[in-house]
Amino acid sequence: MSEIRFALAQIDTCVGDLDGNADKVLEYAHRAAKRGAQVVVFPEMTLTGYPIEDLALRATFRKAAWDKANWLAVELDSDGLGDLYVVAGTVGSTAADATGPHGEAKPLNRLVVLHQGVVWAGYDKHFLPNYGVFDEFRIFTPGEKSLTFEVEGVKLGVAICEDIWQDGGPVAELAREGIDILVTINGSPYEEGKTHVRREIAAKRAAEVNAPIIYVNQVGGQDDLVFDGGSFVLAADGTMVQRSPQFVEDLSLFTLAADGTPEPADIAPALDPDEEVYSACVLGLKDYMAKNHFTGVCLGLSGGIDSALVAAMAADACGGSNVWGISMPSMYSSDGSKDDAADLARNIGAHYDVQPIEPLFNAFQQQLDLHDVAAENLQARIRGVIVMAYSNSKGLLAVATGNKSELACGYSTIYGDAVGGYAPIKDLLKTRVWELSRWRNRAAAAGVGVGGVKVVGNEEGRPGVQLAAGVMIPVNSIIKAPSAELRPGQKDSDSLPEYALLDQVLAAYIEHAHGRADLLADGFDAKTVDTVMRLVDRAEWKRRQYPLGPKVTALAFGRDRRLPVTSAFRE
Amino acid sequence: MSEIRFALAQIDTCVGDLDGNADKVLEYAHRAAKRGAQVVVFPEMTLTGYPIEDLALRATFRKAAWDKANWLAVELDSDGLGDLYVVAGTVGSTAADATGPHGEAKPLNRLVVLHQGVVWAGYDKHFLPNYGVFDEFRIFTPGEKSLTFEVEGVKLGVAICEDIWQDGGPVAELAREGIDILVTINGSPYEEGKTHVRREIAAKRAAEVNAPIIYVNQVGGQDDLVFDGGSFVLAADGTMVQRSPQFVEDLSLFTLAADGTPEPADIAPALDPDEEVYSACVLGLKDYMAKNHFTGVCLGLSGGIDSALVAAMAADACGGSNVWGISMPSMYSSDGSKDDAADLARNIGAHYDVQPIEPLFNAFQQQLDLHDVAAENLQARIRGVIVMAYSNSKGLLAVATGNKSELACGYSTIYGDAVGGYAPIKDLLKTRVWELSRWRNRAAAAGVGVGGVKVVGNEEGRPGVQLAAGVMIPVNSIIKAPSAELRPGQKDSDSLPEYALLDQVLAAYIEHAHGRADLLADGFDAKTVDTVMRLVDRAEWKRRQYPLGPKVTALAFGRDRRLPVTSAFRE
Repeated sequence: MSEIRFALAQIDTCVGDLDGNADKVLEYAHRAAKRGAQVVVFPEMTLTGYPIEDLALRATFRKAAWDKANWLAVELDSDGLGDLYVVAGTVGSTAADATGPHGEAKPLNRLVVLHQGVVWAGYDKHFLPNYGVFDEFRIFTPGEKSLTFEVEGVKLGVAICEDIWQDGGPVAELAREGIDILVTINGSPYEEGKTHVRREIAAKRAAEVNAPIIYVNQVGGQDDLVFDGGSFVLAADGTMVQRSPQFVEDLSLFTLAADGTPEPADIAPALDPDEEVYSACVLGLKDYMAKNHFTGVCLGLSGGIDSALVAAMAADACGGSNVWGISMPSMYSSDGSKDDAADLARNIGAHYDVQPIEPLFNAFQQQLDLHDVAAENLQARIRGVIVMAYSNSKGLLAVATGNKSELACGYSTIYGDAVGGYAPIKDLLKTRVWELSRWRNRAAAAGVGVGGVKVVGNEEGRPGVQLAAGVMIPVNSIIKAPSAELRPGQKDSDSLPEYALLDQVLAAYIEHAHGRADLLADGFDAKTVDTVMRLVDRAEWKRRQYPLGPKVTALAFGRDRRLPVTSAFRE
Repeated sequence: MSEIRFALAQIDTCVGDLDGNADKVLEYAHRAAKRGAQVVVFPEMTLTGYPIEDLALRATFRKAAWDKANWLAVELDSDGLGDLYVVAGTVGSTAADATGPHGEAKPLNRLVVLHQGVVWAGYDKHFLPNYGVFDEFRIFTPGEKSLTFEVEGVKLGVAICEDIWQDGGPVAELAREGIDILVTINGSPYEEGKTHVRREIAAKRAAEVNAPIIYVNQVGGQDDLVFDGGSFVLAADGTMVQRSPQFVEDLSLFTLAADGTPEPADIAPALDPDEEVYSACVLGLKDYMAKNHFTGVCLGLSGGIDSALVAAMAADACGGSNVWGISMPSMYSSDGSKDDAADLARNIGAHYDVQPIEPLFNAFQQQLDLHDVAAENLQARIRGVIVMAYSNSKGLLAVATGNKSELACGYSTIYGDAVGGYAPIKDLLKTRVWELSRWRNRAAAAGVGVGGVKVVGNEEGRPGVQLAAGVMIPVNSIIKAPSAELRPGQKDSDSLPEYALLDQVLAAYIEHAHGRADLLADGFDAKTVDTVMRLVDRAEWKRRQYPLGPKVTALAFGRDRRLPVTSAFRE
């Protein structure tokens, strides 16, 4: 058995962009070879992007992906990289697609090894996750065979993502057969605390096959999902020998010594928990913009903490000069709010326009004479119209500023403050919004300027544009009592429990799926529990925001057709 | 073997409404017994409603459903109906839920037989559909055993919906075992032409078990789905011996003679294809309103055909006096359009308000000075604000008037004409909108007045309120060239291919999943094909309408949590 050098190519792909993804594989393969790698490993579904949802069902797409894999193998060879083993992911078919459309061929989630100018070996994912964000069992047919191959006497076994999260299947087979190293390609979406779980499950499989494990994960944003990278290598005993950074593209190498043990390589430091979540939000927005060809954003700046944090994230994602902040004061907006909005815009170097809504409100009221909630919603909807006017007239992505606490409780105006194409903090509870704002200010004080947060595409950005005062988000926006300012003296706490309590109940009810009895056992009082459950259960429609309608035809939009919003595939 | 009398109880249930659904079962069981039935058969998931999506994952919900099934068995017995065999659907668990929350029990799609005061027998669905609108494999665990039981010497076998759509499984087992009749309970959503397919598949299974088959289907609207009922009985040779009407609740009886052959019973006439689709749309809206406690609707009336048809459907669903039609003319609206809107409102007996948008448009323009598409969208969004103001201030359901052709092509303004909670014609191509409008006028001429269309809840309504002129939808609205009237002289055909052509391409591309090569082979010209594909592929975001955002926590809204919008379940 010889010494072997592996490269972990943690790249950001775009769903449907077969050309762009293949070009990136080529680029990283060159870089890996230059650094002496014999094997380079890419993430799950590298060529197609991930998740491709119902795109997988299009035979023309599978055909195009197959052609691209073959093109890539030839291209690598003619570039002098034929000796390199390139492990990458793509979509396969149960039968050749080339015979014609509407065949009964079914999609497979496939790993291919490109070598000596050909697609040299293939493996199809066995375990197709079908829970949470995953719909793979709906789309793909499970594979049935394991795959091993030898590189200079070293025996590699492979697995794809969920294959290592389930007992049995391909890894059990590889354990019986015996391998020298387990290579896994992954598209594992980010969630708080998941890096720890990934490492545990990988350690379990390393022990099972009694060999080191390579875990290469995708990085980047794709619609609602953010992939954080954080690829790593564990020794057979679970010791970490290599770790790639999170949220950036990366090419890291490590050596498997001739005695079968992995040599220690670079271990990227773990991120602060606040920095991790903040970076996930910035990368999600940055990639959504890039992959949908937006270069700037617009949003309403109320002076409150939600819009301030979103604006800061936007500035970090695309630079302050590409952010249009719109202050839209009403007769109920406090002077403090207006000042805070202006300060924030100045801090991040954003464009700042003031569009008072009172004249517009009065014009509507002359015709409609609305009261109470209807009058409050009217203000929010006028603002929605203005934000969308900026979006349409300047070609900007409107970003929504709602947080998870208010979305969960329906404490927002549909078609009002909820308008936009991307909502960077929709999965952050309000208390988390405050925490991240404080973290961003601490980072600013430590010199991380606008654009300095390390995510794909601005790896070199730190420390970014310096902040005049060293503070990004006005302290006032963080410490004042939250208010929608839609009527005199209004406070969020008039309608909702205090956020410190509300967020605990929401976390238990939504994120940990506690029922009523559990919530009471958790120590929450019955009144709060009933209030929160009622609000959350009734807000489902607002969270979806689009009109439901009857299904009449064989294939309708909605539940039938599940396509990525972001997709570069064109036939 | 004795003669046995069966009742087919085709009822409309509400997701999560355990009390209401159980009460309805009780009521129909009484009616069935009074008419001499020994066995009464209800639809799939009768007690819980269907589809329950991720509600199934809540242990408290499963526990409540189990308690309700037991309550029902006792109640039937104490009402003197203990001898009756009640076949109904509910949710089960792989293990008793009663032991506590967060157990690892998994949900089952279950059929129960209630008899002599107990839940007497159970069967769990084997084949869990996981395509199109179905997500059952995601939620439920497959059953593994078949079930037969005897009623006075007659051997009944059972199956649930998808179990008869797949070869093998429980029906194959019943065929080997031998049964006298196959009883199936179904939640089969409506789609055009499906009644024919259902009958074919049922005939195939009848032949397989060499016995008659009972097919009881749910009726009613549940969010995006409409269930059409149309329950039926086939003899072993596939002959239809009984058929219940579509779109209404129904209790029909038939007798299985002592020699094992079913006696001919009532066969409801098949509906005209236009009437069928129109009724589906009306029932979807009617049930969405009823199950979400709306008694009236509001919508913009432009004088165009889309809003006219939707208004007619709304009047049929809830009565003209519960419809608020709002004419919102701009500087570009023709006099003809305004007259057509007023005529329509008068025909259906709707409230009719005129809210000119020019003053509002001018107020916005003074601040924003928008041009081109941004100025066009502004008009549509001002209308959206007005419609929502009516919705908020009067407690009305805003109904969106977009059709499938324009939604597919993105030919609508997000937060503008697309606002609303329910979109009755979102799955109808524009040419179908014209066809249904003509059908409704023919029906009106034949005496079917407002509210006279036969759907659940207004079975007695025909002929409904008489129409003054015998015409419901102004002929002008049907025959004039479609226009958004957002700029002078604008016509839909400026931006889109003619609908007669566009709809053919859309049907092929969306409903029949033809790719580019297929579309060319279908005979469409390349320019049209490319235009339509580009429009459809780019409009995904508009069709979803809500902001995407990064997933950060373990359970986020969106792809993680899939709950019904309409659900009456409260812990």
